[in-house]
Amino acid sequence: MTGKKAANRNDILNKIRATGRKKLNPESLAKEVLANNRVALSQAITLVESNSEKDEAAAAELLRILLPHSGKSVRIAISGVPGAGKSTFIEAYGKFLINQGFKVAVLAIDPSSEVAGGSILGDKTRMNILASDPNAFIRPSPNSGNAGGVARRTRECIFLCEAAGYEYILVETVGVGQSETAARSMVDVFMLLGIAGAGDELQGIKRGIMEMADIVVINKADGDNLGRAKAARQEIQRSLHLFPHTDSGWVPRAGICSSTEGTGIAEINRWITEFLELVNLSGYYKDNRARQAVWWFRESIRERLLNDFRHSVPASTMEKLAEDVKEGLISVSEATSTAMKIYRENINQG
Amino acid sequence: MTGKKAANRNDILNKIRATGRKKLNPESLAKEVLANNRVALSQAITLVESNSEKDEAAAAELLRILLPHSGKSVRIAISGVPGAGKSTFIEAYGKFLINQGFKVAVLAIDPSSEVAGGSILGDKTRMNILASDPNAFIRPSPNSGNAGGVARRTRECIFLCEAAGYEYILVETVGVGQSETAARSMVDVFMLLGIAGAGDELQGIKRGIMEMADIVVINKADGDNLGRAKAARQEIQRSLHLFPHTDSGWVPRAGICSSTEGTGIAEINRWITEFLELVNLSGYYKDNRARQAVWWFRESIRERLLNDFRHSVPASTMEKLAEDVKEGLISVSEATSTAMKIYRENINQG
Repeated sequence: MTGKKAANRNDILNKIRATGRKKLNPESLAKEVLANNRVALSQAITLVESNSEKDEAAAAELLRILLPHSGKSVRIAISGVPGAGKSTFIEAYGKFLINQGFKVAVLAIDPSSEVAGGSILGDKTRMNILASDPNAFIRPSPNSGNAGGVARRTRECIFLCEAAGYEYILVETVGVGQSETAARSMVDVFMLLGIAGAGDELQGIKRGIMEMADIVVINKADGDNLGRAKAARQEIQRSLHLFPHTDSGWVPRAGICSSTEGTGIAEINRWITEFLELVNLSGYYKDNRARQAVWWFRESIRERLLNDFRHSVPASTMEKLAEDVKEGLISVSEATSTAMKIYRENINQG
Repeated sequence: MTGKKAANRNDILNKIRATGRKKLNPESLAKEVLANNRVALSQAITLVESNSEKDEAAAAELLRILLPHSGKSVRIAISGVPGAGKSTFIEAYGKFLINQGFKVAVLAIDPSSEVAGGSILGDKTRMNILASDPNAFIRPSPNSGNAGGVARRTRECIFLCEAAGYEYILVETVGVGQSETAARSMVDVFMLLGIAGAGDELQGIKRGIMEMADIVVINKADGDNLGRAKAARQEIQRSLHLFPHTDSGWVPRAGICSSTEGTGIAEINRWITEFLELVNLSGYYKDNRARQAVWWFRESIRERLLNDFRHSVPASTMEKLAEDVKEGLISVSEATSTAMKIYRENINQG
């Protein structure tokens, strides 16, 4: 192309980049999100995920405007340890939903991001089909250092995606107890992904987490794996059967699928539909979402209190006290009183 | 007997009652506890369980003195819903241990006591054999209204009982998620009691709790129940097998017993011994207790912060905010900011 054309194109590109970078006020940002402007949605999520106090008011205002437009999606948690094939499953299931005419958003709760600043969705190439689809929105997990805050923010990002018109929100979460409880408290359906091990046991499913699952899926049920996957499903179905009653009245199911071959996806989707029909009829769906909101209110109070505490009591002091408690030099009560005294003094100064 | 003798006896009885009622200072109370004076141990526990701030310093001092004398017991949590036969099992197992020459203390974590002021061990008659044994100490759960505090105090009571020379501490806990986590964090071995249901399923075992168990026991395996109990054990063993690895390296076991006929008790006790040998060798035992101490330190900080919060923000305000969050009228962030503002103002005044 000629130098002139290239210059023109660069002008345009720069303009686009500029709008992308421009910081909008909550009102106009909300308007753009409601119009499903993807750049605006990304900006909105960044604002909500921000740790700086100066963004707090704007984030709250944005949520206040968009909250009435949220809540209409199907929220699904997809849990499983790295290697369980979460990404390939999400890609396959996401594509399945899009082919049915739905818009799909993918978020993540990643405890590691709180520690290492890493992200389980950071490697976009793992979902390149979905990432390139205009009806899909993929958001890597935030690189927040704010322990405990990540999950709460992910929940608020669900609202933003719903306001932008996404009808299925898939929340990817790595198989660690704490983040699972958080995930469970923000979705309608909790799905646990595993793969068959050498024997009939499951690989990499932490104890206690399977009990949360509405649907357990043995992924990678293809090729030589198919037989083992079927055996594992039977074992899981049997153990789920030990606990006939869940709060929702739903009897958890175990299925197999192959994300690469696309087998089993339709059945799992049918189960999700059946689950939603059941909980809608029983009223559990509505009650559960109300309970979740209150749970998060209490949770975020706890989170704020602990943050205040962390900011008022030096980490070194806490480590010293913890060490003494560990060594049995002082009782937990003693250590607690000491730490609380320091906290109270600094809070009263602040 | 003559009037004179009777008078004498009454004098003596009154003296005993007086010492029983007298409030000792931490030092002399500690000395009496170390001498295994049961009245003093009860007083010490009452002091540690006290909610009044004026007792706080004395309780801390008492624990400071006794902490070096604690830690030498085998701490066993015995969990199960009402009806699983916890009391009869504890009576049978406690008697078994006493016959082997051990001294046994029985404590309880009872969440209901936080709400209703009730107590799962209140009905002493349920353990009359053990209660009347000089080598057993049975303490009903505290009627504390201090939410979350009950479990922490139970843990401190473990130390008191250990200082008094009890070698096995059985912590009875009703099968509710939260108190189970607390119990898990103060014992060496977690035992879950259940009874066989009509089918092969377990009766009244909450999902998620079985995953915590080192040993699952199907109680009331006698008479017509024996067959069903054996079937249930097999099912549980199978499902425990799904999760081959625990942090301790111990593969959980499922057994059956009859507290009334005394069958199975010896085998369960052998398993506990094997478990302790394993974790002692691996070093897990020591590490676990250190981890637990630190966990409780963090936990009691959280507890104090929440108590401060409850005392500074009126319950009515919190209920109103929770209601608005529930109805989706305000976002969780908004409600949290409002509540935290009130808290900060009152804390700074206080």
